[in-house]
Amino acid sequence: MFTIDSLVSPKSSAFLHAIQDKIINKTKPPGSLGLLEQVAQQLALIQSVASGEFCQRIEINQPTAIVFAGDHGIAQQNVSIAPSDVTRQMVLNFLQGGAAINCFCRDNNIALKVVDAGIQTPLTVKEKSLSADFIEQRLGAGTEDISQRAAMTMAQVEQGIAYGQQIVSSIRTTGCNLLIFGEMGIANTSAASAIYIALTGENVQDSVGQGTGISSEQLTRKKALVAQAVERAQQAVETFEPMDVLAELGGFEIVQIVGAMLAAAQAKMVILVDGFIVTSAALVAAKLYPEVSDYFIFAHQSNELAHKKMLAYFNVTPLLSLDLRLGEGTGAALALPLVQAAASFYNEMASFESAGVTV
Amino acid sequence: MFTIDSLVSPKSSAFLHAIQDKIINKTKPPGSLGLLEQVAQQLALIQSVASGEFCQRIEINQPTAIVFAGDHGIAQQNVSIAPSDVTRQMVLNFLQGGAAINCFCRDNNIALKVVDAGIQTPLTVKEKSLSADFIEQRLGAGTEDISQRAAMTMAQVEQGIAYGQQIVSSIRTTGCNLLIFGEMGIANTSAASAIYIALTGENVQDSVGQGTGISSEQLTRKKALVAQAVERAQQAVETFEPMDVLAELGGFEIVQIVGAMLAAAQAKMVILVDGFIVTSAALVAAKLYPEVSDYFIFAHQSNELAHKKMLAYFNVTPLLSLDLRLGEGTGAALALPLVQAAASFYNEMASFESAGVTV
Repeated sequence: MFTIDSLVSPKSSAFLHAIQDKIINKTKPPGSLGLLEQVAQQLALIQSVASGEFCQRIEINQPTAIVFAGDHGIAQQNVSIAPSDVTRQMVLNFLQGGAAINCFCRDNNIALKVVDAGIQTPLTVKEKSLSADFIEQRLGAGTEDISQRAAMTMAQVEQGIAYGQQIVSSIRTTGCNLLIFGEMGIANTSAASAIYIALTGENVQDSVGQGTGISSEQLTRKKALVAQAVERAQQAVETFEPMDVLAELGGFEIVQIVGAMLAAAQAKMVILVDGFIVTSAALVAAKLYPEVSDYFIFAHQSNELAHKKMLAYFNVTPLLSLDLRLGEGTGAALALPLVQAAASFYNEMASFESAGVTV
Repeated sequence: MFTIDSLVSPKSSAFLHAIQDKIINKTKPPGSLGLLEQVAQQLALIQSVASGEFCQRIEINQPTAIVFAGDHGIAQQNVSIAPSDVTRQMVLNFLQGGAAINCFCRDNNIALKVVDAGIQTPLTVKEKSLSADFIEQRLGAGTEDISQRAAMTMAQVEQGIAYGQQIVSSIRTTGCNLLIFGEMGIANTSAASAIYIALTGENVQDSVGQGTGISSEQLTRKKALVAQAVERAQQAVETFEPMDVLAELGGFEIVQIVGAMLAAAQAKMVILVDGFIVTSAALVAAKLYPEVSDYFIFAHQSNELAHKKMLAYFNVTPLLSLDLRLGEGTGAALALPLVQAAASFYNEMASFESAGVTV
């Protein structure tokens, strides 16, 4: 079993008042930058904790998105708009730069890594060579069908957490201090809903949604299968401990994201949290180590039914609400300029005194 | 009286279906990019109308923000958190690069122009020389107090419209095809509320808000004064024609923004609409020439009470909702990366066919 040392909560920083003073003295009515003021405060707290000194200047260096791809056994049961083959096809699309996440990373100067966390069929040598940004850390050829049996073994969960930690360590050497996690995996909203239900006790009806756009008939089946998966898991484990939930109901991409989040928080990096699937990983991480939440900035509220409820669990208002339902980390990539704007007003705006403004 | 020729509605473009086809064939579930898909469609429609050809590639060139500053006679009545002096101080802050709009324009590569549309005391020669981006087109030393008399004469309105048109013509020569209008003017939420009430018949209670953060006592006074202004104006003019509304209840910055919007739409430029004050100008422009609305992309929903209602008038969901209440064009400057993201997915994302994705 892995352990995490020294996960510090930035909220307890002794520099909180100094940070608030710096923000309130900017040449604008107090609070008039709304959510951006909260983001600036959180960034400054994290970076104060990271350096041990009052954060004079927020630095966002080498922002990097890591898209984890994995397949899901439950996809066989026709709960998605597309078959599992599409997970692999989209991985190739990522490596060739043609997907939405590629566009938004290019736009916003975000480095992009693509991880095969366990898609059905591995890439060929030739396919892997399409991009130097491909990383293979497979936990298997897709998970088991969670409506029938555990998604994976505890050994796979632990390996997945370790893989997630490993990639963050490696990316940290580039100087990166802000991470975005994205995902691709046909049927992974079923896994995310099941995780949410198991960890919070929420009912199925309000926790299972249309994913990328299934029919109402498919939605009815999806709800029944997710309910079946959670019941099955409930019988298999006595109480829903986070690691058990991952083994019973998780996905290979989700497990690796949990590990990556824990490592990022331990390294005092900012984590810009994407939509429904990534938030389900955030929920697991926060159940394991509550302090990890202080490193989360929630990027967007997706169109998926239960995402709003998950966000309420964290008691946050996300930066964007654009009716996205694509995944890949797109919501987080789109939100990065707002995070940078929060940093730049903190760093560069004049104070009342320096500007001679008499409010 | 000015006239506007050839204001074309992009919605009637013969290329609509081709644009929709291009968007639906991108490698993503249909509609999964939410609001960005609507923005991409609108951008492509505008640029198809501009070129007379199907828009293969959306180009956003030299995005420029123009911040118009003007003072308001009603500020004497203590309806704001700050005195009129602050309008001028903030103009100097803009010229020295220290305000929020400066930060966000720098972040997002937006050119910034600052217009004295009629602040109380003009800048000195030395102050004007602080920045080459300062433009003086004053309509007076602040408007009259609208609770007592007309804000300005019809001659001033017409001059203001002409000034707005003029600056857009000039900026267009840089190759700019997307404009942001911002404003600075202590007490201008009073004018914007009065304009909104006069043009829509909405009641005062729901149309007057806290601006940048006044006390409840000030809010009560502000409501009474705005009601008085609208009643006074109602008696002065028979019906509330848009030009009369500007003369009776407007502001020098608001009038120039109306002119700038009309000129931008005539030139088939994209107009990224900021918050409450700028939306009140958009309302006047749309009442004068309804086609102008087709060039508007609404950037954000501000914290101001009536802004949500104004947006409902246009039947739009804005891109951002960050609880901003600052003005200056900040909401629009913050939204530009989302507009660019819409363009980039339209331009660069693979199609199902090109990527070999079988959905």
